[in-house]
Amino acid sequence: MELFYSRDIQGGICRLDQDESGHCVKVLRHRAGDEISVIDGCGTLYRCRIISDSPKGVEAAVISHESNWGGHPYRLHLAVCPTKNNDRYEWFAEKACEIGLDELSPVIGEHSERRVLKTARIEKVLISAAKQSLKASVPSVNEPVSVKEFIRNASKDALRLIAYCFEDERVPRRSIKEVLDSSEAKEIIVMIGPEGDFSKAEAELALEQGFIPVHLGASRLRTETAAITAASAAYFRYM
Amino acid sequence: MELFYSRDIQGGICRLDQDESGHCVKVLRHRAGDEISVIDGCGTLYRCRIISDSPKGVEAAVISHESNWGGHPYRLHLAVCPTKNNDRYEWFAEKACEIGLDELSPVIGEHSERRVLKTARIEKVLISAAKQSLKASVPSVNEPVSVKEFIRNASKDALRLIAYCFEDERVPRRSIKEVLDSSEAKEIIVMIGPEGDFSKAEAELALEQGFIPVHLGASRLRTETAAITAASAAYFRYM
Repeated sequence: MELFYSRDIQGGICRLDQDESGHCVKVLRHRAGDEISVIDGCGTLYRCRIISDSPKGVEAAVISHESNWGGHPYRLHLAVCPTKNNDRYEWFAEKACEIGLDELSPVIGEHSERRVLKTARIEKVLISAAKQSLKASVPSVNEPVSVKEFIRNASKDALRLIAYCFEDERVPRRSIKEVLDSSEAKEIIVMIGPEGDFSKAEAELALEQGFIPVHLGASRLRTETAAITAASAAYFRYM
Repeated sequence: MELFYSRDIQGGICRLDQDESGHCVKVLRHRAGDEISVIDGCGTLYRCRIISDSPKGVEAAVISHESNWGGHPYRLHLAVCPTKNNDRYEWFAEKACEIGLDELSPVIGEHSERRVLKTARIEKVLISAAKQSLKASVPSVNEPVSVKEFIRNASKDALRLIAYCFEDERVPRRSIKEVLDSSEAKEIIVMIGPEGDFSKAEAELALEQGFIPVHLGASRLRTETAAITAASAAYFRYM
């Protein structure tokens, strides 16, 4: 099933941007009168009939819509340190979206090797992944902030988890599975550290702020694998 | 922690091949007298002292060894159809190894777009992944066979699961989580189909042979994502 993406759907009219229009008309050869399906990135799928098949600006009339299309029964926000290699971060974003993701925050830790990230590229990856996996919601991406800033601003209404590798006898970590299984929380935040792990100071701040320390099992996972594992944990919890 | 890999460990002597030796001596600058750790790919870690630091053929004396190093308490065999794009298959192999994998069988389905696969490349990816994730076992890769041949030859002692997308009212699919949770099986086989799904004939043969049909949740997952999700399911089952 082919899907288009548009943030410009109002007054019963859907307008596609230049890229989407080009793909619609020149590649897929749609013409006025054809029906197309468009996601708005916020959970709704619109069934539309093309009025104007200009390859630079398709216009279509909304026939019907469906809310919460392809959605999942929980809200997952992953805060993940950028990986040294951009490809890996993009792979992870794509997979996390397929599995189930609502919000992505790149966070820069004290031990982070990469301290910048092009969110525009990640947004494109997420739009493609949402279309391919038939979800009308596209996960949002935030601009990078420091780990400490993220910890301080994280919503206290959410079940907030921080995954780090070191052992701290004062506050033993439980498995992410155990913590999720023992909670009814539908809003989940999971922080995934860099290859060098979160620092002791970052972990301490997280605990002070009410984050629950978790481990992701016995395997030593790369950052992007840990992030996918966290997304899977939430997915299985509500499967 | 840096690890080396060798299949040539006998009589108390470990020999590294040309690539490993070059890396050991020229890149990491090890010399005779240094201690190195070597995995044999079959579960054992050897602690060794270098005797000869030739960059073409390092020799080291075994000091001690540890069995089942970095192992996991179950045996997972994934049979996965090759993806159209080789990168995706390699990406999946790397991640599945990090999470926990013992054997990988590329299987060619009736709906498979790609009908060949270079197993040598996959082996290299798996050796790297095992070293990076500190596991002494490297998952084995088999030569590609047809889905039907795999189904017929699969060990009947294992818990055998086939994940397909279509609904079959005669034999409803259960979630992979539910099936694993209700089983004590330590040997698990999971078949993951191509983007076009397994054919009805392949699914029927699988059911005849005793495979249990499962789904991987509500999300529509690419082949490589489905395979990682299956690996995660086994990982969480025994977490």
